Amino acid sequence: MDHEGRIAKVRDGLGDELDGLLVTNLTNVRYLTGFSGTNGQVLVTRDGALFLTDPRYESRAGDIVHGADIVVYPSRLTEVLGDRLQSASVRRLGVEATTMTIAGMEDLDEKLDGVGLIGTKNVVENLRRIKEPAEIDLMRRAADITADAYTWVCDRIVVGATERQVALDLEIHMRQNGADETSFDPIVGSGPLSAHIHHSPSDRAFEKGDFVLMDFGCRVDGYCSDFTRTVVLGAASDEQRESYELVLSAHMAGIDAIRAGATGVDVDEASRAVVRSAGRVEQFGHGL
Amino acid sequence: MDHEGRIAKVRDGLGDELDGLLVTNLTNVRYLTGFSGTNGQVLVTRDGALFLTDPRYESRAGDIVHGADIVVYPSRLTEVLGDRLQSASVRRLGVEATTMTIAGMEDLDEKLDGVGLIGTKNVVENLRRIKEPAEIDLMRRAADITADAYTWVCDRIVVGATERQVALDLEIHMRQNGADETSFDPIVGSGPLSAHIHHSPSDRAFEKGDFVLMDFGCRVDGYCSDFTRTVVLGAASDEQRESYELVLSAHMAGIDAIRAGATGVDVDEASRAVVRSAGRVEQFGHGL
Repeated sequence: MDHEGRIAKVRDGLGDELDGLLVTNLTNVRYLTGFSGTNGQVLVTRDGALFLTDPRYESRAGDIVHGADIVVYPSRLTEVLGDRLQSASVRRLGVEATTMTIAGMEDLDEKLDGVGLIGTKNVVENLRRIKEPAEIDLMRRAADITADAYTWVCDRIVVGATERQVALDLEIHMRQNGADETSFDPIVGSGPLSAHIHHSPSDRAFEKGDFVLMDFGCRVDGYCSDFTRTVVLGAASDEQRESYELVLSAHMAGIDAIRAGATGVDVDEASRAVVRSAGRVEQFGHGL
Repeated sequence: MDHEGRIAKVRDGLGDELDGLLVTNLTNVRYLTGFSGTNGQVLVTRDGALFLTDPRYESRAGDIVHGADIVVYPSRLTEVLGDRLQSASVRRLGVEATTMTIAGMEDLDEKLDGVGLIGTKNVVENLRRIKEPAEIDLMRRAADITADAYTWVCDRIVVGATERQVALDLEIHMRQNGADETSFDPIVGSGPLSAHIHHSPSDRAFEKGDFVLMDFGCRVDGYCSDFTRTVVLGAASDEQRESYELVLSAHMAGIDAIRAGATGVDVDEASRAVVRSAGRVEQFGHGL
């Protein structure tokens, strides 16, 4: 991962309006420095970058933070931020508007003398959109682990097994095969419950002829997979086959519509059009 | 859980300064209504309470939301909020300052005509401080599951086992015995790594004589446990025994200092005093 290069791009992007950017979104902090703990901030200025954290991470920060000098504050960022901004001649500080809370902003405003705070959006997110080869490799690893778990779990979808058990099986298999964690709580919905979007796995036991929907994924070094697969327990009825195939063609039409310059709305619409042209009503999906 | 009673307390607490409170902190939303999904808000006004969410939760909201009428918006809260505030004659709306981001606040400000937004702190959190008997039961269940996992895992702390494997074993045991999830990623640190605060479990294999530190917990219906236990693999040396006993007495002194009216600083200081009076230097702990 090219942490130095990423930080340099943020620095180059400060432009004429900002003297520095305070990164508080933890995913962005990880992207810029590699740090994956629960409390850390990055200050990017024209001079360079600082990583700031509390003493819990002091002993490890040197090993897990790249491309930035490390500053440890006793318990709160504002104990050291003012001095650091002054040293770097920062008078106009960008903050991340979609992460910074209004209480956090008030606190900074009160503690920082002579520094103007300016809300910014998507500065680091825009860099993250285009993946480096090493990032694509991690996404591929996450997808491979997920695909293996799917193949393995199919044998466990039997009459009497429960949604909750299969959800836990999927998670354990992914974790034991290299996933750091799930990318979200696995969803397993069966029979009538397979029609519920964002269902929580229940103790419902599978019956012969059930649709069983599984929506799951895992995370490897912060990079996620997200799979949805639907199977029938036993032989599929004609109606099940028809609706499965309709959803599959809608899915493929969506994939066909993905190209540089297309929007999410374009891709979504390509899928929905297939469903409508078959005389069916599309349900709301994930991508609201 | 007395959801209606909790909402009534928020309504009574609006006082003269607010006509309504918009609750966006998901833990507070769950406390007030029982909803445990990833997108939902509660609007408490003098007239009553609304639970607002997107269509993913439409089919289930009636089953999982208590004490509030349900409103489903197509994709964003601001599509319906203005009309609802007008119906309830809300002109001064409280928002939760430690959850609402500055981007969220700007969005509300832009979309809501004639409504003043007022940052509030700890309105719902102050209710949550005092637990109902049913909440204490859930905390006890979480603690029992955690204690069982500890007893069970001790047999798996053997020469050659790794930190990562024991962390996963702990998690799986808790999940298979009634926990919904872990309350945080389990920490297992061994040998020299047992001195790292907030260590991530590594592939280090245990050796005879290691200190093995485990910091773990689970969640039952949203209520958490948090255990730390340290064991020695094999017979403890005199030095290990001495430092273990010093930490244990500091811990007990902290527990003794807990009483109504004491502050967190008082309890922390009672523990640190024990360490200092033994001529040792206390390390920073969790409770920063």
